[in-house]
Amino acid sequence: MTREELSAKILDAKRRKGLSWKQIAEAIGPSSPILYTAALLGQMTLTKEESVNLATLLGLDEFEATLLTEPPYRGSLPTAPPSDPLIYRFYELVQTYGTTWKALIEEEFGDGIMSAIDFDMEIQREENPKGDRVRITMSGKFLPYKRY
Amino acid sequence: MTREELSAKILDAKRRKGLSWKQIAEAIGPSSPILYTAALLGQMTLTKEESVNLATLLGLDEFEATLLTEPPYRGSLPTAPPSDPLIYRFYELVQTYGTTWKALIEEEFGDGIMSAIDFDMEIQREENPKGDRVRITMSGKFLPYKRY
Amino acid sequence: MTREELSAKILDAKRRKGLSWKQIAEAIGPSSPILYTAALLGQMTLTKEESVNLATLLGLDEFEATLLTEPPYRGSLPTAPPSDPLIYRFYELVQTYGTTWKALIEEEFGDGIMSAIDFDMEIQREENPKGDRVRITMSGKFLPYKRY
Amino acid sequence: MTREELSAKILDAKRRKGLSWKQIAEAIGPSSPILYTAALLGQMTLTKEESVNLATLLGLDEFEATLLTEPPYRGSLPTAPPSDPLIYRFYELVQTYGTTWKALIEEEFGDGIMSAIDFDMEIQREENPKGDRVRITMSGKFLPYKRY
Amino acid sequence: MTREELSAKILDAKRRKGLSWKQIAEAIGPSSPILYTAALLGQMTLTKEESVNLATLLGLDEFEATLLTEPPYRGSLPTAPPSDPLIYRFYELVQTYGTTWKALIEEEFGDGIMSAIDFDMEIQREENPKGDRVRITMSGKFLPYKRY
Amino acid sequence: MTREELSAKILDAKRRKGLSWKQIAEAIGPSSPILYTAALLGQMTLTKEESVNLATLLGLDEFEATLLTEPPYRGSLPTAPPSDPLIYRFYELVQTYGTTWKALIEEEFGDGIMSAIDFDMEIQREENPKGDRVRITMSGKFLPYKRY
Amino acid sequence: MTREELSAKILDAKRRKGLSWKQIAEAIGPSSPILYTAALLGQMTLTKEESVNLATLLGLDEFEATLLTEPPYRGSLPTAPPSDPLIYRFYELVQTYGTTWKALIEEEFGDGIMSAIDFDMEIQREENPKGDRVRITMSGKFLPYKRY
Amino acid sequence: MTREELSAKILDAKRRKGLSWKQIAEAIGPSSPILYTAALLGQMTLTKEESVNLATLLGLDEFEATLLTEPPYRGSLPTAPPSDPLIYRFYELVQTYGTTWKALIEEEFGDGIMSAIDFDMEIQREENPKGDRVRITMSGKFLPYKRY
Amino acid sequence: MTREELSAKILDAKRRKGLSWKQIAEAIGPSSPILYTAALLGQMTLTKEESVNLATLLGLDEFEATLLTEPPYRGSLPTAPPSDPLIYRFYELVQTYGTTWKALIEEEFGDGIMSAIDFDMEIQREENPKGDRVRITMSGKFLPYKRY
Amino acid sequence: MTREELSAKILDAKRRKGLSWKQIAEAIGPSSPILYTAALLGQMTLTKEESVNLATLLGLDEFEATLLTEPPYRGSLPTAPPSDPLIYRFYELVQTYGTTWKALIEEEFGDGIMSAIDFDMEIQREENPKGDRVRITMSGKFLPYKRY
Repeated sequence: MTREELSAKILDAKRRKGLSWKQIAEAIGPSSPILYTAALLGQMTLTKEESVNLATLLGLDEFEATLLTEPPYRGSLPTAPPSDPLIYRFYELVQTYGTTWKALIEEEFGDGIMSAIDFDMEIQREENPKGDRVRITMSGKFLPYKRY
Repeated sequence: MTREELSAKILDAKRRKGLSWKQIAEAIGPSSPILYTAALLGQMTLTKEESVNLATLLGLDEFEATLLTEPPYRGSLPTAPPSDPLIYRFYELVQTYGTTWKALIEEEFGDGIMSAIDFDMEIQREENPKGDRVRITMSGKFLPYKRY
Repeated sequence: MTREELSAKILDAKRRKGLSWKQIAEAIGPSSPILYTAALLGQMTLTKEESVNLATLLGLDEFEATLLTEPPYRGSLPTAPPSDPLIYRFYELVQTYGTTWKALIEEEFGDGIMSAIDFDMEIQREENPKGDRVRITMSGKFLPYKRY
Repeated sequence: MTREELSAKILDAKRRKGLSWKQIAEAIGPSSPILYTAALLGQMTLTKEESVNLATLLGLDEFEATLLTEPPYRGSLPTAPPSDPLIYRFYELVQTYGTTWKALIEEEFGDGIMSAIDFDMEIQREENPKGDRVRITMSGKFLPYKRY
Repeated sequence: MTREELSAKILDAKRRKGLSWKQIAEAIGPSSPILYTAALLGQMTLTKEESVNLATLLGLDEFEATLLTEPPYRGSLPTAPPSDPLIYRFYELVQTYGTTWKALIEEEFGDGIMSAIDFDMEIQREENPKGDRVRITMSGKFLPYKRY
Repeated sequence: MTREELSAKILDAKRRKGLSWKQIAEAIGPSSPILYTAALLGQMTLTKEESVNLATLLGLDEFEATLLTEPPYRGSLPTAPPSDPLIYRFYELVQTYGTTWKALIEEEFGDGIMSAIDFDMEIQREENPKGDRVRITMSGKFLPYKRY
Repeated sequence: MTREELSAKILDAKRRKGLSWKQIAEAIGPSSPILYTAALLGQMTLTKEESVNLATLLGLDEFEATLLTEPPYRGSLPTAPPSDPLIYRFYELVQTYGTTWKALIEEEFGDGIMSAIDFDMEIQREENPKGDRVRITMSGKFLPYKRY
Repeated sequence: MTREELSAKILDAKRRKGLSWKQIAEAIGPSSPILYTAALLGQMTLTKEESVNLATLLGLDEFEATLLTEPPYRGSLPTAPPSDPLIYRFYELVQTYGTTWKALIEEEFGDGIMSAIDFDMEIQREENPKGDRVRITMSGKFLPYKRY
Repeated sequence: MTREELSAKILDAKRRKGLSWKQIAEAIGPSSPILYTAALLGQMTLTKEESVNLATLLGLDEFEATLLTEPPYRGSLPTAPPSDPLIYRFYELVQTYGTTWKALIEEEFGDGIMSAIDFDMEIQREENPKGDRVRITMSGKFLPYKRY
Repeated sequence: MTREELSAKILDAKRRKGLSWKQIAEAIGPSSPILYTAALLGQMTLTKEESVNLATLLGLDEFEATLLTEPPYRGSLPTAPPSDPLIYRFYELVQTYGTTWKALIEEEFGDGIMSAIDFDMEIQREENPKGDRVRITMSGKFLPYKRY
């Protein structure tokens, strides 16, 4: 069984039980819904305990629970650039603002990168009379190029 | 003169005068340094007034100032995916979290996208004893698929 | 079950029952045949009620009807550029007129884009003695780059 | 001199004289601004007379005027898919609606294509209290696959 | 059932019955073997009557016959450029002579294209003492760029 | 000097003198205009004598004439697939009919290819009341896979 | 059944019977092991008689034997460039020496190519105290560009 | 000065002096013409002495001679796969026979590769009444995968 | 059965038995865990004896054991560049340091390469109070370009 | 002036003065030759002091020295995968051992990556009677996926 097949099975079970991602996240453990959704879509790992909680909720067997605790081969996009409009807009931000992020982060922090590993993220609804907004807050550790 | 040539000229002038992006942004106008940096790197437009302020600061001629007020052909990455590590990490976030953003935004807002046009962004330093962090806050209007 | 598998099942049912897209659209609800055809080909969503109507018409089960109400991973072309001649001609229009659209829309509206989300479209037959013509009318909200 | 170099020269002259595409189109001849803009951006041809009118307006020499009457090597996008957001939205429409156009045009007309050669197009502003809209009307001759 | 699966089934039936493409073409109807071979390989359509003739000859069911009357998603090459030497040689002709065709067709006919839709083709053996030759005659309607 | 630079120079000279490809071909020698046009566009070679005739006609120097007698690095398309509509139609023919050509040539001749080297081609206008047609006749030696 | 599936079946049978390619080649017929190995890997054809010999040796049925006598869709590499190191080294030779082969073959033979169709090849072990060597001898007919 | 610019200069000098690759090779030193041609085309290195001989022959300066003694960034093909027919045929051999070479070399030598570094090659004319042939002999050291 | 299917089966067995790569390596033979892991992931070969040990440990049959002794078609990455962050970092090192390795290895050793075949590697944990480090030691034979 | 142009100028100066990378590194400062070579090839930064030392050594002006202290747009390979054999071997290691590195590092350290930023490397000659070896030692901090 591949991780993709397991994700498909999880999506089917979620649909049949009429659960939302947030409901599943609450039933699994205390970390963020982003982390749990990413894990169930094959991009992150669950702890042993979280995987057991999920297995109970969705009716997975022990082998499937174990699979969710192993680091997956990451990368969730079938094509590059992504064809789905919602996801493409993020790619477009990289295209339009990539060099700007580089210029301003390097000016503020020196030569290095923002970590995508020691990294945290939140998605929130921002109420607005002109139309609600999606608010995404990212926080990644700055990692300077070390010299040896 | 292409926009790329103008950006190269601006980078040279900035280097010779020893100015930072933030200093330039303050001299141009009241909008965010992200917007101004993106404009000078060929991805956004300046207003007439801002372009005159910049021209005065860096010694550009009128033609060059006008060029900065015209919408550029956007897209700042020489290769896809981007080879530069700082910019690649953002691409990696799209790879790893793209389907998660899609799942959670659609669960919260319904079928639609986060606009990359009616969009705002901030970059901040987050002090942290384990190592300072880069904090990026994005806010984009949610646009539902309309039916006619 | 993936959305592609469901689209294949719908195409088979349509063929066996000898229904046209327009007949199916009329049986589903009041929106445009373009919207419904796109939904059945895996690119748009149906409302709960529309999906029930479709399920009744084509003999789908409840799970399949639910699947049609969820936002799909969009993108209907197996290769880029598309190899099918009918679809390629539209790609060719983007190749030939893309920069012209950009020039004229920006001249009329300022810096921004035509939305592909708040977007409407019609396809009509235009009778013509020299050979009938395909008339496509698109209307998308203009979205200016906002400044914050 | 290549066609790209000539387009760059034309853009510079347009900018220096402060002319709009519509003003230039009116000065060249009676065809649509889309056609003329496309020609000046290196995608269409001008007639002899139109090229002379343009040369007078912008100060081109005879050789340059002649170049504009020759069919160019068409294709105006530096990358595929296009990185510029305004142009990408049209590519996205092909991605999302390509198979729908195919289904509905073939249902109405039989096996064939909409010509991108015997083709006409208009761009209009559609006033709307919720935000003005871009209206694009395309009309292309239907060409059935002929049998011999 | 996809069109590819049907083509595979047709190839198997052809092989088991020991039929040539020409024998099949004669049994189907009066059009050219090129048209019929292309249809059976998933690139063209048959008429209702032709599809019935084929079904009788090869033992296809009614659903499969119907599938052959629908416009397929065209494009027969698994990679671009094609890896098969026979087919690659045609791609090489486009590479070597493409700009020449453009120059000479435009000189003779003006700005436009040779239609690949209103198009006819023949393949013949040309006997030759130095080695027989493949003779391919193509005839496509010239379509001038129309102005509106 | 590269072959591309020489082709650009030849195109400029042709334009300034107002010569057609056919007039140039007649002035160079007895072979076909296709061969000569391809040579001038950097895809074929001229004989010593032909290159001298051309040099006289267009005012090239001896070095440039020599360059035209050397086999060029062939391949005239800046992108694959080609973006120019006239040339793309030929690529589309390979996409649509490639497997058909393979099936029918192999049925008639056995396993092998049509040579693109021992190859001849003609382009003719075919008068037709419904619109004139482009007639292309290709003749290439059949080369069977040899066994040793 | 596709040719790939048949090759997989042949590889399984070879493995189960513990046969080498050379043993299989000797049992099939008098041509070279290269030809036979290529045919069994889906790149060349067998004669009727050879296919019967192979079927007897490996236990294939008549349909499978017939399939081996038909020209396959050639091209044995899943990616370009090939990821397998042994095969990549040959690709590297084309990268490094391609322009040298062109220069020297054209100097010796004039404008043309070495045929990959009327082509023969041998692979031999070359004993050498510093380490044995692989010796590959290729011989292809020179084909000059013909003029008509 | 890049290696490409130097190769272009060498080609110009060779053309003006009317020298063949073999004549140049003989004047440079005792190694094979393949090695020397590859070096002059930017793919191999010359020894100090050879570079001086070449500089004398073609009128290069000391800096240029030095450049030829440095390992170049190898890779002589502007596109992959190569568009030039002579070079493409070699690529086609890799496509058609790549897996066969792998099967037979591994059967004879075990798991490993033929070196493209400890490698030798010869190109010869093979006279033949049916048409002369190009004979290429390659000999590369077999390198087994070592275990540690 | 393909090598990929066998690797999937091995991963499943490993997971069910709760074995680590190191435990498996110790049970197979005396070579490094890197070699054995690579073999089980379809990139290297086992000896006859090692394959029998593995079959006993994981419950594979004789055919599967044999398959592991045959050279695989190497290349373990589904996309290039690799989307998985852990593997991408190595690709990034090639991007950032590739030309530096070339410069320094050639300065030290002359023109040639580091073998990826006569090659050895170790991965170790390097304890460090600021965070443990991954230490990778590679040792490959230097292979100079030989002249003949 | 771009960083590429500066690297080219540095390479020319190095060649004219007959300096090795190691000599330059010693003259610049106390860090490793790998770091300095990478900086001069446009992939790393120098400190203010190091850039002044280099400028003195090679005769650069102040502007050029400043440019070397700014983070470059990283990525040193003109094509992917790299065509140069020395660099390709490293890419091949990623292809062959990428999934093995992933398996063993994750087994030892848990889910995370080896940093390519907090990273150190050494290249050494390993004397060996069978042929000297290139020894590369890499040490990168392990970064676990953090949970928030």
